[in-house]
Amino acid sequence: MQSKAGLDLKTYLAEKKVLIDQALEAYFPEPEGPASNLLKSMKYSLFAGGKRLRPILCLAGTEAVGGTESDSLPFACAIELIHTYSLIHDDLPVMDNDDLRRGKPTNHKVFGEAVALLAGDGLLTEAFNLMTTAQLTERVTSQAIIKVIGLLSRAAGYRGMVGGQVVDIQSEGKTVSFSHLEFIHTHKTGALIAASVTSGAVLGGGNESQLQAISAYGQKIGLAFQISDDILDIEGNSKTMGKTPGADKKRGKITYPSILGFAKSQEIQSGLVEAAIASLREFRHRAEPLRQIARYIIERKK
Amino acid sequence: MQSKAGLDLKTYLAEKKVLIDQALEAYFPEPEGPASNLLKSMKYSLFAGGKRLRPILCLAGTEAVGGTESDSLPFACAIELIHTYSLIHDDLPVMDNDDLRRGKPTNHKVFGEAVALLAGDGLLTEAFNLMTTAQLTERVTSQAIIKVIGLLSRAAGYRGMVGGQVVDIQSEGKTVSFSHLEFIHTHKTGALIAASVTSGAVLGGGNESQLQAISAYGQKIGLAFQISDDILDIEGNSKTMGKTPGADKKRGKITYPSILGFAKSQEIQSGLVEAAIASLREFRHRAEPLRQIARYIIERKK
Repeated sequence: MQSKAGLDLKTYLAEKKVLIDQALEAYFPEPEGPASNLLKSMKYSLFAGGKRLRPILCLAGTEAVGGTESDSLPFACAIELIHTYSLIHDDLPVMDNDDLRRGKPTNHKVFGEAVALLAGDGLLTEAFNLMTTAQLTERVTSQAIIKVIGLLSRAAGYRGMVGGQVVDIQSEGKTVSFSHLEFIHTHKTGALIAASVTSGAVLGGGNESQLQAISAYGQKIGLAFQISDDILDIEGNSKTMGKTPGADKKRGKITYPSILGFAKSQEIQSGLVEAAIASLREFRHRAEPLRQIARYIIERKK
Repeated sequence: MQSKAGLDLKTYLAEKKVLIDQALEAYFPEPEGPASNLLKSMKYSLFAGGKRLRPILCLAGTEAVGGTESDSLPFACAIELIHTYSLIHDDLPVMDNDDLRRGKPTNHKVFGEAVALLAGDGLLTEAFNLMTTAQLTERVTSQAIIKVIGLLSRAAGYRGMVGGQVVDIQSEGKTVSFSHLEFIHTHKTGALIAASVTSGAVLGGGNESQLQAISAYGQKIGLAFQISDDILDIEGNSKTMGKTPGADKKRGKITYPSILGFAKSQEIQSGLVEAAIASLREFRHRAEPLRQIARYIIERKK
């Protein structure tokens, strides 16, 4: 394995994105039959230009512990299905009521609310079927598959992402404490990001100490990522972001900058990224993509 | 094992229901913390008086192939979580817009639409975590768990239940063919019922020929069950049903009676039940609960 100290992150991300996009394209059949509109709606959002950050983290987590991307590719794809479902439901009128996502009309604007709701349900459910299609190898045992299904469902469900979304929705327009805000961010965004990289490491055959280190990394970058979103919502413009900037404020959402100010938020974010990178000390060159992804999180513009 | 030829179905259903209710009660913690409202909402619908038919079918499927109820109890509970999520989403204003379910206000009437949507998401996601908690034994191998997770997610997702719901919603108020109606019924209701009993048989260690027979049974009673619902919607009264009778007609939903008439629908239903029972020929006394459940489906009043 070639040293990755001189890794070009842009190339790395682009290559992995192609791999994931191709696997996702190959996985779903052409929509046909009475329910074809459902599959069209699912694929509309799945191929709406996502960065594939979570699945890339999954693959990078596998590589960090000495596995290969084929060990975790079905899971990486499944994670993107879960992420996509959460965006579709989040955009619905009863939730954030967003018309635009990644510069395109949101799912319910194209397919109607009922089909969008069901497309989200369909993507979430299919994610778990996709996880059962993984090829069993020496590294990927059936025990590892069951462990990862548990890990991802806890991170995505009421103990994680869905729990964060409920608190987020219920906090709109209210004055809430910093610990409350931290709960939202670590649950709504952080949990699935952390589980993405950790599940990759489980499937790559990582040992207990490696899994702990990767999980610590994941939790820190998960929170840093959401703080980035908060900052971008203020700084960004709709062209680079693909959504309306200032939407959080308009909606009365609490954010890190709104509670702690801009400078303090950036300071926390940098601290999290440094701590995330420090968690990877034992991994050497194999974790170089994870280190660079951590830095990328605070430098990104969308 | 005692002969079940003289089985009293009422007692059997009541005993299994208690077992499932207790397992579900023990599984979920008391709601606390910032997201407590979400768990309250999930438990509200989960304990709103469901018959637990699908989990009972799962346990009965296990017993039919010589397994014991502990082999499949976590899966039986997980299936009830999936069924409950589907009811919550189905009742939402963008879907069927129902105010009453099992004689109680629907989830969104109590918790609001956003929380109800997320409670459904939370139940569906948690179902898959629950499946990973099964105790591995000689009969319940990790391969069997993965097989059942695949089976249930396909039955519940876009290839099954969610696919049926989309077609159901899109057909409201339209004139559709009988084959279209059959698609809705076999997908929306039949798929999860069939998968419930089949997954029980997989976990009980059933062989390939047994699984085929059980699956044939499940598909037939699944369709018969939905035809019952159609008939009850005309015949029933709101007190025994816990919902408003005639709702299908009011909503412009196509049903078996509306296309084929009452007598022909009953004839098809009886034929399905007889065929379902015939599928169980090789099982002898162990499948007596499944046989009686099949007959119960067309005799039930709610």
